[in-house]
Amino acid sequence: MRRAELATALRPIPIDDPADPRLAPYAAIRERDLVGRQGRFVAEGEVVLRVLLSGRSRFRTESVLLAPERLPALEPALAACDAPVYLAARPVMSAVAGFPIHRGVLAIGRGGPVADPDALVPDGPALLVGLVGLTNHDNVGGLFRNAAAFGADGVLMDAATCDPLYRKAIRVSAGTSLTVPFGRVPDGAALLDLCARHALVPVALTPGAEDIAALPPLPRALLLLGTEGTGLPEGLMARARRVGIPMAPGVDSLNVAVAGAVALHRLGGGRLPAQDRA
Amino acid sequence: MRRAELATALRPIPIDDPADPRLAPYAAIRERDLVGRQGRFVAEGEVVLRVLLSGRSRFRTESVLLAPERLPALEPALAACDAPVYLAARPVMSAVAGFPIHRGVLAIGRGGPVADPDALVPDGPALLVGLVGLTNHDNVGGLFRNAAAFGADGVLMDAATCDPLYRKAIRVSAGTSLTVPFGRVPDGAALLDLCARHALVPVALTPGAEDIAALPPLPRALLLLGTEGTGLPEGLMARARRVGIPMAPGVDSLNVAVAGAVALHRLGGGRLPAQDRA
Repeated sequence: MRRAELATALRPIPIDDPADPRLAPYAAIRERDLVGRQGRFVAEGEVVLRVLLSGRSRFRTESVLLAPERLPALEPALAACDAPVYLAARPVMSAVAGFPIHRGVLAIGRGGPVADPDALVPDGPALLVGLVGLTNHDNVGGLFRNAAAFGADGVLMDAATCDPLYRKAIRVSAGTSLTVPFGRVPDGAALLDLCARHALVPVALTPGAEDIAALPPLPRALLLLGTEGTGLPEGLMARARRVGIPMAPGVDSLNVAVAGAVALHRLGGGRLPAQDRA
Repeated sequence: MRRAELATALRPIPIDDPADPRLAPYAAIRERDLVGRQGRFVAEGEVVLRVLLSGRSRFRTESVLLAPERLPALEPALAACDAPVYLAARPVMSAVAGFPIHRGVLAIGRGGPVADPDALVPDGPALLVGLVGLTNHDNVGGLFRNAAAFGADGVLMDAATCDPLYRKAIRVSAGTSLTVPFGRVPDGAALLDLCARHALVPVALTPGAEDIAALPPLPRALLLLGTEGTGLPEGLMARARRVGIPMAPGVDSLNVAVAGAVALHRLGGGRLPAQDRA
């Protein structure tokens, strides 16, 4: 079906019963965030929905649930969406979700196959991000946003790092966890093995090391980031190029997403074509 | 009283009644966050309490409220504290505060006099941050943390920017909103007037401008930051040096605290003495 036909075919479906089975995927969102959703995820808010519906997202839309007053502004973005679009008043949405849905915009997305980490490494210039033990969804979401902004080719996560498709991580990422390719490895050592296979320089961000500003340009690099508290494991850092960000006396650390942004700006800034700089 | 005498004088006061009048400043924290606290603020968590008790804080401690099991680790930091230290079980703390106090660490601080903005500008090298219309406590807290990390001399805020002494802003700032000097100005135009008075170059961060990496070193600068959505007012930017951070195609913006960190790293990194770089 061509896009123009789909555009005229948008038939939102009003629902006023919170127990309607078509709303079951939206039920008790917070509790189900904790136990996993069998390949599905919850997209929340207009920014994320627009990314999910765009060609940039790597994921399918299963359904959309909107407060009726949000429909007009979103209609153009929904034109090419072949998933059902449900309309429910905010009190109905909140009753289903189990907490107040102020934004009035939800959707269910569905994951594709998990990426092979080796397949994420491009030939030629390459910049990847490796996350080790990051269990905070805000930080993981923030790092995806920064990876997208600075043109990273992908994000690789160890088993301890939390799910970038968790609702709050997607929201904080401004939808970029739906666009930046990511993959899983068992642990930090597997990231170093991957660096060795693909001639990537592993760069470990850690206090007290060589100033990152003194680093020569690295055409192929993987930036390793660990938690603010315990940092990267010593055995990992011993096999990586350690760099630090100069900080004022008395300041222990930056937020890990912020430190990652400063490092990616340094490592990746030069890769962005001049016409795209903004 | 000398420090050693104070150290031996630490006499924590157990309280088990949530209605005890000594706990009144801790009552209904969330509601009172919204209406202001007459110069008082709530410090939450161990990181913030340690900053409040340290010589780095510009504020006084009025009282401390701890879950008893948190006392041993904090005792050395409390040794020089002449404010009362109350001990209450977590359920009592939560009943008073009106929500679960998982960390078991609270304190009430009291503000000093509001700083004169002109007094925050040092002679010689100067780097200040100007916030215009930032109403998100996470962003303001994050910007204080970054201002501290990159050695900024102070933060100036317009009337629309939210309170850096709001509980959540202090927590996100890792306590640095208690250490970095700040002041208020009526609006963005007043920031530019201040720049003119003190020979500071106003640097406006905005998409689509000159690459910040191409900026020459600026010994005296004020970095202007506005909201992610609407950005800085056009009239303000017309009077400032506009710079941007190169971003990948399709990415609209960075989080404002992250963008501020990248810019401060660029503007301020060279000011930090080499021995303090970490």
